[in-house]
Order: sequence, then structure tokens, then C-alpha cells
Amino acid sequence: MGAPGIPRSLVASLIPRPVSVTQGDGVFVLDAATAVDAPAALRGVAAWLQGALRPATGLQIAAGVGGNVVLLTEPGLAAEGFELTVTPAEVRIAGGSAAGVFYGCQALLGLLPPAIHRRAPVAGIRWQIPTGTVHDAPRFGWRGVMLDVARHFLPKREVFRFLDLMAMHRLNMLHLHLTDDQGWRLEIRRYPRLTEIGAWRRETQVGAGPDAPGNGRPHGGFYSQDDIREIVAYAAERFITVVPEIESPGHVQAALAAYPQLGVSGGNLEVFTRWGINYNVLNMAETTVRFFTDVLNEVMDLFPSPYIGVGGDECPKDQWILDPRTQQRIAELGLADEEELQSWFIRRLNDHLRSAGRSLFGWDEILEGGGAPGATVASWRGTAGAVAAARSGCDVVSCPDDQAYLDYRQSDSPREPIPVSVVLTLRDVYHFDPVPAQLTAAEAEHVLGGQGNIWTEHMDSPRTVDYFAFPRLCALAEALWSAKGGDFEDFDRRLQLHLARLDALGVEYRRAAGPLPWQQRPGVPGRPETQDQRAAHIAALVANIALPADFASGS
Amino acid sequence: MGAPGIPRSLVASLIPRPVSVTQGDGVFVLDAATAVDAPAALRGVAAWLQGALRPATGLQIAAGVGGNVVLLTEPGLAAEGFELTVTPAEVRIAGGSAAGVFYGCQALLGLLPPAIHRRAPVAGIRWQIPTGTVHDAPRFGWRGVMLDVARHFLPKREVFRFLDLMAMHRLNMLHLHLTDDQGWRLEIRRYPRLTEIGAWRRETQVGAGPDAPGNGRPHGGFYSQDDIREIVAYAAERFITVVPEIESPGHVQAALAAYPQLGVSGGNLEVFTRWGINYNVLNMAETTVRFFTDVLNEVMDLFPSPYIGVGGDECPKDQWILDPRTQQRIAELGLADEEELQSWFIRRLNDHLRSAGRSLFGWDEILEGGGAPGATVASWRGTAGAVAAARSGCDVVSCPDDQAYLDYRQSDSPREPIPVSVVLTLRDVYHFDPVPAQLTAAEAEHVLGGQGNIWTEHMDSPRTVDYFAFPRLCALAEALWSAKGGDFEDFDRRLQLHLARLDALGVEYRRAAGPLPWQQRPGVPGRPETQDQRAAHIAALVANIALPADFASGS
Repeated sequence: MGAPGIPRSLVASLIPRPVSVTQGDGVFVLDAATAVDAPAALRGVAAWLQGALRPATGLQIAAGVGGNVVLLTEPGLAAEGFELTVTPAEVRIAGGSAAGVFYGCQALLGLLPPAIHRRAPVAGIRWQIPTGTVHDAPRFGWRGVMLDVARHFLPKREVFRFLDLMAMHRLNMLHLHLTDDQGWRLEIRRYPRLTEIGAWRRETQVGAGPDAPGNGRPHGGFYSQDDIREIVAYAAERFITVVPEIESPGHVQAALAAYPQLGVSGGNLEVFTRWGINYNVLNMAETTVRFFTDVLNEVMDLFPSPYIGVGGDECPKDQWILDPRTQQRIAELGLADEEELQSWFIRRLNDHLRSAGRSLFGWDEILEGGGAPGATVASWRGTAGAVAAARSGCDVVSCPDDQAYLDYRQSDSPREPIPVSVVLTLRDVYHFDPVPAQLTAAEAEHVLGGQGNIWTEHMDSPRTVDYFAFPRLCALAEALWSAKGGDFEDFDRRLQLHLARLDALGVEYRRAAGPLPWQQRPGVPGRPETQDQRAAHIAALVANIALPADFASGS
Repeated sequence: MGAPGIPRSLVASLIPRPVSVTQGDGVFVLDAATAVDAPAALRGVAAWLQGALRPATGLQIAAGVGGNVVLLTEPGLAAEGFELTVTPAEVRIAGGSAAGVFYGCQALLGLLPPAIHRRAPVAGIRWQIPTGTVHDAPRFGWRGVMLDVARHFLPKREVFRFLDLMAMHRLNMLHLHLTDDQGWRLEIRRYPRLTEIGAWRRETQVGAGPDAPGNGRPHGGFYSQDDIREIVAYAAERFITVVPEIESPGHVQAALAAYPQLGVSGGNLEVFTRWGINYNVLNMAETTVRFFTDVLNEVMDLFPSPYIGVGGDECPKDQWILDPRTQQRIAELGLADEEELQSWFIRRLNDHLRSAGRSLFGWDEILEGGGAPGATVASWRGTAGAVAAARSGCDVVSCPDDQAYLDYRQSDSPREPIPVSVVLTLRDVYHFDPVPAQLTAAEAEHVLGGQGNIWTEHMDSPRTVDYFAFPRLCALAEALWSAKGGDFEDFDRRLQLHLARLDALGVEYRRAAGPLPWQQRPGVPGRPETQDQRAAHIAALVANIALPADFASGS
């Protein structure tokens, strides 16, 4: 990029950065005669493109043979790759698959003025596209985001909007964190109390730390099964897989509030109103396994994703240690300790998912106490989990907290709202590499890609999510799509035009100068850490990761 | 409605209630062969219909001559009226204008399963429309909503969504309350501090009353001029006029914070963080008139609306009484008192708007102290303003607080969130009649229609707006569209299917049983009034309304 002779007008706007670009001197102009020509298999992509071009231009772009915007698949291209060729007479988008064609369409939007993203006709703009070619293909197959709708519920329209923004950035995996201590967001027909009771909490802690006050205000919401089908179908039209996550055996207090018999104590609990790791976990009775496999059956009916998330992170063992029934269970099952008990539970879910043809997806804690054969690991505690999993033959999605946690503070300014952990700048995210340096090439094959994680304890509205997610998600998208070794200064230049697109879309991204006055949260405590504090904290968390070398071959 | 022999399947879903309906035995089925046939003048409506039918059905509905969904205008019909005829072979929508055709399209959606409103393909549904005819036309030309984006800012995507919901209910006027003490939401190029300073406040009062605490959290946001153009164009595609409102000479503290020289004291003020009537008002210097006419010039460039709102309500005269400069001004201008001074200011704005070919739109307080020739009055303090204005020949938009204020409490349950004023039930809104009973037929000609007012002091998110607005806005839409004397029980039956539409759209309406747990605001003080308390309160407010009988003929 930035090679001499390539005018900025073409390359300036492209995020992610393409494999190659050439530019001619002419333009293709969108007008009333523009029509999309696509084979039957690409009709959905053509309809999406027609829909994307219509609002701002006001043009009724038709579809039909002989159209001058030609969509086609070309077997020689990488599966998600594309080749976009613009001449004065024609736009040609060839993809290695329908997804590749779709990404070529997104690149086409990236060559139009930013106002193309407005939702009603814009006067005084000539809708022209520079002639030339763009060739592109992604580095990784898993280009994801984890969105936590459990801590703060997002209405489904905001999920649609988030999916649109993901598609614009050619991200293809939405890891939807649907349940946690603070809320259960998914209707389960067999267990209606999960949402009747679990979908709302009495109040919410404001800020971090044990002394942070509650706000006295109920918070809640959930997705009906029809809503979920709609979200999944909407995502599929944008070539995004929605990976659902039902947390277990920790982060379950919302479920315990609904069904106390799932807990160790069996006592009444309310949906958790505090943040942080919670000691209330599932009991390991057979009936509890059955409850969760019932839930996963409905989840599998709703989500066609090959991956089904079961959580597995941050499950304190204290209640199990103290509970005679659990100790007896450990003995009956012939297990060594509580770590093996968690592993046993995860393996039970893993068996259930595998028998239904799905793969278990879990946080890197599932490697502790024995792991689960064939599981895919979301490695979050730095890179230790990714290294251990890849070396033992497990597939890995990298989301190391210090490179991909989009709830971490964006600068060390005291004006940052509710600052959490270490500083994770736009530049840091841009340099995120999902493949840990210590892996061999063969081991690195197990790294499917990476994802940014948006934990929403401190994001209580879609507007706040915008502030934390953007523009860091733009940098993350390029880190996951483009070849290694991108130049941040070049990215930052291209970002300027890209921000005009986000403006047109109404995205309330963080400005380079810091938060706008109304994006600040004065006086609300965060929990900032230094790099050393975080490193010590994570080192303590990863001490248990250890796997047998031949682990992945087991079943 | 409800006549014997008309199956509920057809009529059950229609809100507003049509003039007449007949139903046959057959169905028209949407399928891959469905195409819209529309003359050039209706291409925009056709495109909207294609766009509305595509997401849920997944059908690529084409446009072209010979299509089996025929749109046309028919001069014999009322301007906004339509005739929808469905046979097994064809759907025919004739309108008195493009707007009428558009409302016919909305009625067509009302004959399809509620899932038509979902945004991605829904499996297992046959998209069929019962055969028959629907003839309909509105009672009033002004079917509006006032949306207060000053007290709590709504991101533009939420304004688009609100416009979609208005269009679905055949509402055609969005009165956008853009400025107030607590925020200025519109970019003005000439006076950038209006948004730099005025678009956010330090914190927000939570609940009503002098003892209600502040929340310590900044709130802000504004629409760029490009955003406004987009909102106006988006509304126009849905046959909705956006009537902007720039408050003056009271409700201006956000402007005073930005430009203290506009105030009486000239001292520094912050954007107001409290609710209620505010004593800080504009000074009446010539430079202040000039400032506001400059602002109105930019407003007129952005908003093609024939009506331009200038506010005029709730302007306490205390500062003017105490201020020697203001008293001197009253003497210089030869005015009797402060009421006449306010009237003089409003007349200056009126002259400015009229010379630009627009009409001033103001709250019924503009009738005090002399009124403004040719102005249109939004009558809110009961019906007194509507009666006085109509009798003096002014046009009136009725929005009596006790029939059309959608921030008023929906029941007398203590569970209602932040209960304000009197109870205004769904039934009450349904029986809203914009024409006060005491007007003669000739006087009633001046009543253009009515609107519901959504004041957002206590609605701090789009989710809360949903709770207060729906389903009361459905009842209001029928009150403004349909013939007088509707039967609430019949409406309530039809509403059940309509609520399924709102569910499909994700609207978080109030349930008949009351608020969901997370829609409640326990412990937050409201200001409920009895009917007697409200009547006394309003009577005191209307004491000043008096106009010369020949007022409207003046210029």
C-alpha cells in the first residue's frame, strides 16, 4: 500500500488493506441504467448489493442478464477471496465463493463516497467508482467478535446493526455471549423460568471494585426464539456465523436464580447485580447435566453454527470443595479433584454436542483438568492457552486479553470512561497477531483466527458499545484479514476516510483526542492495571493449563 | 367493523380502522413471480414496497410492466385515501396521491402475517393475502407526533426507526423538538458553540420534583446538518414531514450556556441539569432577534416543512420584570407589558418566516399578548387554546395534555415508571378527538388534526420511549385517521394481532398487565396528579389566553 503512482483516492478508503490494487484513470458511474447481473446462486448477494446502493443514491438498481455490475464465482480464487475489476463500462466482482463475492461488494462500497452509507437520498453527489482492480483474500477463516449481551442486553435491532458493521469490516463470526451471572437472554421453551426470572436483575453495579454502588434500577431483556432465528438468518445473509454461548459451570447465577436446584447450596439467589468472579456455580448432579444438555438441544435447533459455546471460564472451586455431595460425586466418578470434575462436566457436554455433529467451543480454562477432545479453544489469558492448545492439537481462536479485549481502556487519560485493566490502543490492536510467536508452522495451523471481545459490564447502552468498539474493531478486522506486518501509519491514514463512513452510519466511535464530554463517566471507579500488575494477575490464572501431549487424538 | 360475515382474519389486523372492508374466499400468494407494476411517479413507493416485502419473505420482488401488484393513482380518491383490491391473480392499490398509494401498501402489510416485519427470511410461512377490498381515507391531514430529542438525545438510527413506526401507523407529521434548556441537538454552522457547548449537560435529574437527585453522568449528542438532511429525506420517502422546533424565548438555557450574551443577566450558565420550568430566558435585544433569525435561516435550508416551530411555551416573565434593560425595551417599543414583549418577539420571528414563505408553528402560549398572524398553534393546555385559536381563525393542531401527552402515566399502579400527571390510558387516547366539542363546524375547519407529544425528561433511552409510546400511539393513529366514534373494544381486539407485529419489530410496548420488571423504576419519584389537581393547574396556565376576534385577518 502507499506505493508510488497509486492515487490515494482509491486506496485511501480500503479497510481491510487489500493484497493488491491497481488504479486506472477513468471512472464507472452509478446511474439509472446500472443493473446487477448475477447467477441464481448469487441472487442473495445481488439483492444485498441492490439494497446497499439504493438508499443514498435513490437509484432503483435492477437485476438481470446483461447488467453492468457482474457478480460471479471463480473457482481459482481463495474461498473468501475476490477480484474486483472496475472499467468505465463495467464492474466485475469475482469471488471464490458467494462469501468472496459479498466481500468484493463491500470493497466496492469502500470505493464510493462515504455518503453511500446514508439511509436516504443524498443530493449533489456523483456516485462514481475509480477504475482499476482490487485483489484480496483473508489471512484467517475465523474473524470474529464476542459480544456480551448478558451483562447489558442489546435490543435485537442493535444486534442487526452490529452485524452490518461486522459485515462492512469482513468479520464473519459473531460469538454471542447469551448467559452469565447477571442475565439469561435466550428463551428456552423447556425451562421458561430462565427468562421469566433470569432475564432481568434488580439493579446494576456502577463501575468496578467492591465499593462501587448499585444504581437501584432494574435491567433486563431477552431474545425470543423467533428473534434468534431472525438474528441467525440476518447474519447468514451477511456470511456471518452466530456462535452461541451458554455459560457453565460458572457464570450461572441467573440460571440459579431461576432454578435453585441447579446450584450447590440449592438456596435462593437473585440474578447477580455485581461484577466480577462469582462463587455460585452449578452442582454436578446428573440432573444438572441433563438440564444443560436439554438447553443445548434447543440451542442447536436455533443455531446452525458448527461451534456451540459452553463457557467454562472462571469457575471457582470453593463451593465444590466445601460441599459433601460434590466431594462424594468426585469419589464416585473416580476423579482426582475439582479441576477434573469441571473437566468431566465439560466432557459430558462435549460428548452431547459431538453426538449431534457439533463442536464444543470454550474458554481456555477448558484445558485445565484434562480438556475436551475435539473442542475449539477461545484463548484469552494472554497466549498461554493458545500455545498449549495448538501444541496438543486443539483448534484455537485467539483473543488474548492484552491484544483483543475491547473493554480495556483506550488510553491512560483519566478522562477514559470506567478504565479497565491495561491500555489497549488502536495501534496495539492493529498489531494483534493471532498466532503466538512460539508456535511452529504446523502448530500454527491450529489457529483458526482471532476475535475481539466486547465485555459489557461497563457498557450499558449501544452508544457506549460504539465508543469501546470503534475504531479498534476496524484495526482488528485488518489484523485478522490482511497479511501480517501492516504499517500502522498507513492504516491510520486510510482510517481518516473510513471514519467519514462511520460518521455517515452514525457510529459514535472514540475520537483520537479521547472521549467527547458526554462519553465520559466522571467519578465512576474503574480498575486500571499496569502491565506488570496484569502480567502477574494472568500468570496466576494460567498456572493450571497443562495437557497431555497426545490429548487431541482422544475421543 | 365487526359486521357479521366479515371473517376476523382480514379485519382483525387493520389499524387504523378502515372506512370499509369486504372479504372474499380466496387468497393472493406472494411468490417468486410477484412483481410490482408502477408508473414512474410511483417508483419510490414501489421501491419501498419491494424493500418492505423482501427481508422476511426472501423474495426478490421485481418491478416492471405486467407485474401483478399494481400501483396507480386515481384522481377520484381522497388525496391520502386508497383503495386496495386483492384477487387471487392481482393486488391493486389505487391512491388519491402517491401518499395514498403508500398507505395502501401499509394496509397490504397489515393483511400479511405479522412475521412480514422481520428483517431476515422466516421459514415455514405462506405469504398469503386474503382476497377482498379495503377502502380508506384519513379524517385529518395532520396526524402527528412530537418527539423530544432535547431532553434525551436519540441517535439518528432511532429517529429512522421511529419514522418507520409512524409510517406503519399512517402518521405524517414529526414535530421534532430539537432544543431546550437541557440540550441543543442541531448543528448550526454560524453558531458552532450551540452544539460544542449546548449539545451536552453535566448530569441529569432522575425523577421529578425539587428533591430528585442528579445522576452525575454527562449526557449529550446532536445531529449534524448532513444527519438532518438524511432524516428529512428518509421521512419524505415515507410521506412524513419533519417540523423542526427551535424553542424561544424560554426553554433556552442550552443556548445561553453557549452564548451568554443572549440571556437577560449575561452571566455564565451551564446546560440545565434539572427538569421543570426555567427562569432563564432570552433578552429581547435586536441582536438576539438577529441570532434567532440566523438560526431559523439555517433551519429553513435544512427543513422543507411549510411549518417551522419556534416554541413559545412556558416563558416565565420574572427576569424581564426585574431587568431595567428589558423594561426600557418595553417602553421603547411602546408595549404594555411582558406578555406583549413576548408576543412582539414571536411576531418578529413570524415576520421572518412569512417573508421566506413559511408558517410559524408554536405552542398555545403564542396566543397570549397578541398572537402572531398566520401562525399555527399547537394547543396543549387542555382544549382552551384550540378553542381560542380556531375562533379567531388560526389553524390548530390539537395535543391536549390530558388526551395526547404520552409521557403521562398509563395507569394508577405504583409500578408505573416515574408516574407523571394524570392517568392517560390506552382507552383515553383512543377516544381523543382533536376537535373540541364547543366549536362550530366552520370553526372546526381550522383544526388541522392532532398529535401525541412524547416529552422525554423521564425516558432516557429508546427502550423507555417504546414503553411510553406503544401501544398508545396505535390508538392515537386510529383516533387521527379513522372516523369519529370508534369502538374501543373492537380496537382492542384488533390490537392483539397488531401487537404481534410490534413483537416482530422488537417494539418494547407496555403490556396490558403493566410494566415488565425491567420497565419499572422503583423508588424514583414522579409527580402524579389527580384530575382535579391537573384541572386547577391547567386553568391557572390558560388564564392569559385571549385574542381579538378579528385577529387572524391581520398581518
